[in-house]
Amino acid sequence: MYRSHNCGELRASDEAKIVTLAGWVQKSRDKGFMIWVDLRDRYGITQLIFDEERTPKEMMQQAQKLGREFVIQVEGEVIERASKNPNLPTGDIEILVSKLNILNTAKLPPFTIEDETDGGEELRMQYRYLDIRRNPVKNSLIFRHKVTQEVRNYLSKNDFIEVETPYLIKSTPEGARDFVVPSRMNEGQFYALPQSPQTFKQLLMVGGMDKYFQIVKCFRDEDLRADRQPEFTQIDCEMAFVEQEDILNTFEGLTRHLIKEIHGIEIADFPRMTFDEAMKRYGNDKPDIRFGMEFGELNDVAQHKDFNVFNSAELVVGIAVPGGNFYSRKEIDKLIDWVKRPQVGALGMVYVRCNEDGTYKSSVDKFYNQDDLAKWADATNAKAGDLICVLSGNTNKVRAQLSALRMELAERLGLRKPHEFAPLWVIDFPLLEWDEDTNRYHAMHHPFTSPKPGQIELLDTNPGDVKANAYDLVLNGNEIGGGSIRIYNKETQSLMFDHLGFTKEEAQAQFGFLMNAFEYGAPPHGGIAFGLDRLVAILGGQETIRDFIAFPKNNSGRDVMIDAPAPIDDDQLEELSLKLNLKS
Amino acid sequence: MYRSHNCGELRASDEAKIVTLAGWVQKSRDKGFMIWVDLRDRYGITQLIFDEERTPKEMMQQAQKLGREFVIQVEGEVIERASKNPNLPTGDIEILVSKLNILNTAKLPPFTIEDETDGGEELRMQYRYLDIRRNPVKNSLIFRHKVTQEVRNYLSKNDFIEVETPYLIKSTPEGARDFVVPSRMNEGQFYALPQSPQTFKQLLMVGGMDKYFQIVKCFRDEDLRADRQPEFTQIDCEMAFVEQEDILNTFEGLTRHLIKEIHGIEIADFPRMTFDEAMKRYGNDKPDIRFGMEFGELNDVAQHKDFNVFNSAELVVGIAVPGGNFYSRKEIDKLIDWVKRPQVGALGMVYVRCNEDGTYKSSVDKFYNQDDLAKWADATNAKAGDLICVLSGNTNKVRAQLSALRMELAERLGLRKPHEFAPLWVIDFPLLEWDEDTNRYHAMHHPFTSPKPGQIELLDTNPGDVKANAYDLVLNGNEIGGGSIRIYNKETQSLMFDHLGFTKEEAQAQFGFLMNAFEYGAPPHGGIAFGLDRLVAILGGQETIRDFIAFPKNNSGRDVMIDAPAPIDDDQLEELSLKLNLKS
Repeated sequence: MYRSHNCGELRASDEAKIVTLAGWVQKSRDKGFMIWVDLRDRYGITQLIFDEERTPKEMMQQAQKLGREFVIQVEGEVIERASKNPNLPTGDIEILVSKLNILNTAKLPPFTIEDETDGGEELRMQYRYLDIRRNPVKNSLIFRHKVTQEVRNYLSKNDFIEVETPYLIKSTPEGARDFVVPSRMNEGQFYALPQSPQTFKQLLMVGGMDKYFQIVKCFRDEDLRADRQPEFTQIDCEMAFVEQEDILNTFEGLTRHLIKEIHGIEIADFPRMTFDEAMKRYGNDKPDIRFGMEFGELNDVAQHKDFNVFNSAELVVGIAVPGGNFYSRKEIDKLIDWVKRPQVGALGMVYVRCNEDGTYKSSVDKFYNQDDLAKWADATNAKAGDLICVLSGNTNKVRAQLSALRMELAERLGLRKPHEFAPLWVIDFPLLEWDEDTNRYHAMHHPFTSPKPGQIELLDTNPGDVKANAYDLVLNGNEIGGGSIRIYNKETQSLMFDHLGFTKEEAQAQFGFLMNAFEYGAPPHGGIAFGLDRLVAILGGQETIRDFIAFPKNNSGRDVMIDAPAPIDDDQLEELSLKLNLKS
Repeated sequence: MYRSHNCGELRASDEAKIVTLAGWVQKSRDKGFMIWVDLRDRYGITQLIFDEERTPKEMMQQAQKLGREFVIQVEGEVIERASKNPNLPTGDIEILVSKLNILNTAKLPPFTIEDETDGGEELRMQYRYLDIRRNPVKNSLIFRHKVTQEVRNYLSKNDFIEVETPYLIKSTPEGARDFVVPSRMNEGQFYALPQSPQTFKQLLMVGGMDKYFQIVKCFRDEDLRADRQPEFTQIDCEMAFVEQEDILNTFEGLTRHLIKEIHGIEIADFPRMTFDEAMKRYGNDKPDIRFGMEFGELNDVAQHKDFNVFNSAELVVGIAVPGGNFYSRKEIDKLIDWVKRPQVGALGMVYVRCNEDGTYKSSVDKFYNQDDLAKWADATNAKAGDLICVLSGNTNKVRAQLSALRMELAERLGLRKPHEFAPLWVIDFPLLEWDEDTNRYHAMHHPFTSPKPGQIELLDTNPGDVKANAYDLVLNGNEIGGGSIRIYNKETQSLMFDHLGFTKEEAQAQFGFLMNAFEYGAPPHGGIAFGLDRLVAILGGQETIRDFIAFPKNNSGRDVMIDAPAPIDDDQLEELSLKLNLKS
């Protein structure tokens, strides 16, 4: 036993006890006749004291040499502290050390192990094991553990069974983004790593498992961007004998449970919004509804005047920025530059100041009078003191642009409060979406998603109008989960593959195993998958997932602490392997 | 809502309720005027009744056409059953059906969906989704879920944090059995799949996580044999500031908790045995101690007579088979053939019958008198009515042979009771083992294992004698877990690599990241890993792991229900991928 207590648990009530602690030297203060050391472990910090009068000289000398991050073990008496520290749970006491044992020395760390560190991102990633010692990262990992435990407990209590599905699977047509795994021991065989356990969980439903979940790694071989990992973790769920309503209720329950358990916040029934409505009101299928700034469509009130930019536009749409009239002319010009950046892509922006006296001042006063502008204010729900920002153009593009502006301004105005939670179901997604590049329809969710009842006939005539039994759970402007009610008979599944451009042979070769299974008594079923990394980050009030992953990959996909992967030399590896005989 | 109740929950107290059920047709009995249907779901079976008097004619005709494994939904009244079935929890009631809805038809399954099926192993694997509907498989998967939940709850309560480690890692020298994963999107980069998260969990200890666990998939690219999977699941654990004693106590606690929760059996302190003792007493480092039949070494009492086979042997060793004197001469000859099979490899076997009258009759009466044989009986602890089996030869070989015989006979005698649990710690493993093929020492556990205190000096002079801080947890003759106290400073780790034949450069290139981390304040640490698949199977009283894995791979490593993996054609995959636009 290296310790009788951890560094976070001793209190005034423990005074006079002889205890043993072990941990890291956070810092030490040496006043010559007295030395104080902050000893740290995962659980907290306890102050140690050495003093000339009571500590043997040799130990004083040893204590003087303790450097930051040395690993030590001490035995000593819990005594009352002269100057108490009310900010530390252990701040009433200190340990008068009687035995000191240096377990390991430490080089000076390349950055300070403090909540606010002087280390940059790259350095902290390179020495991730030191970064993990810092409270923000350590607590994020503990937080992730608690969230996943809560998820498992909630689902288990609700009769879900966690079933492991294979990681080494047959490569399927998601293939271009599949990681491919050749087997060297079984030559000529290839596996792929799953992008999701989709077909396996459907087979489990055919197998009668009724309610399945799994917290599972998924893999996608794509260009790596910041905050994107080639491996990510999913809470994957599927239920049999359910309709959309059952799924929404079940996972609304899970999400409400998590927010309640973690933050003590009770959330009422989650609002629901169709995809069409979300696009119209927020220009986005994952709107952040923690704040308003809803879109006001202005075609009726802004077109048919002399302003040709609007007259020729498919959509004229604006938002009211609360209190936005405080922006100076210069600041508004900067905003206009912001929407014209290539990442946003607007050609320009019209604005209207809503003055406190009820008058309006716009950048298009030449074309619109006060009555016209009052109608704009009405449509965008603008109040005195607000600023109306108006964009125009192609419907899809202008919605995306105005949504980007809405989010940017909300961020600047502090309306995206990290510890406020506003979940939202977005439902009735289109089944198919048109792809400009390939000039064809694609499955918007995936090809196993069922169309809304009675709409399958539309596939031939108006494929873009067919709605799917598909839904996303949105939290604070992020898609945290998405799913659908699945097709569960062979004919419909086969028809769907036809419409996606598969030949019968291709469909059978790739998904025959699933369609064949549907012939042996498949129940109606549906499910949902949550991105755990993102869910945890949002519940933790953070924008980025990186702190919640113990060993994130850097932007080139490499493990942050381990040298780059290298091409494999079989002979060399085999020789090394024989030397090591690694077992477990 | 497809159902108001599941098929396992209705009781006599529910009589007169109108309920909706959904499930599979287990079987139906058609008496013309009356039709009974057993409706099955994950939760149980409920009997449905249709009868001429109360059921509309059209529905009677529909009901007559219900085939096995059809998926149906019914509404009806819960009524008292005429002939009750006390073997079924729902056996007091049946449902008088008023609405019948066929949700899906089913082809005739290729084997019966019964506890005792007529389907062979291969067929059941091919149609695994049908096999999973059978109680033995379904219950095994549920059992696995319960065990893993209990493991997580126990460890969480004991301050362990589950941390996910990467699946896409740098290939390390275990390399020859690593699956290698080329990245197509990031050309020229290779990952490997981990054989275990060993180095990552050690880095977490350096990072101060203190107590870590993870239930995690591990991968090994080897020749596939029966009951061996290229991917397997591990309960992986590590603790900082611990000695061997702390680890043994913690995981003895976990194992005791599991056996208590699952079987209601209280197990006292687990016995401990050194590796040397286990080899001497059982010829095996994972002895099944549910029964005796301990080895009795006979060199002292059997050598120096005229029997040259024994005189020239390094070891003469026997076991007493309880009640084994009932074996006929023919049966004993068969036993001798059994030990002479190439899989066992003995050259022959000497036996002694212990007659009820206290006399002995042996196959070597020419060389040994009754007094001699009495000494053999004494050494093997044989009683009247037993049979003593004696083998001789090279110590290691003869121990392995006699251990195989001991297990075989125990199996035949019914001494390996599946629902009796006899855990055992085997400790003090050798640090290194000699490998005949490569003519050098290898790490017996792995190269991160620490030698016993004070023994590191022996590495130069008597490497084979150095004992490690390594331990295995054995349950019913199976190694279910193994681990060690690790090296935690750079010098010792570097020295270890020297002794394993690494050059400084090789060691630094492969494990530099770990040794460097040790320089920044690594705490003493150690851990253990359990094979979940095997643990679950043994706790479930089974010999094979296959029923506890939803989608086991067949002997060529292919998923049982999905066609063989095939070489990848990038162009084809890319085209298919564009068609599908798979998302989640």
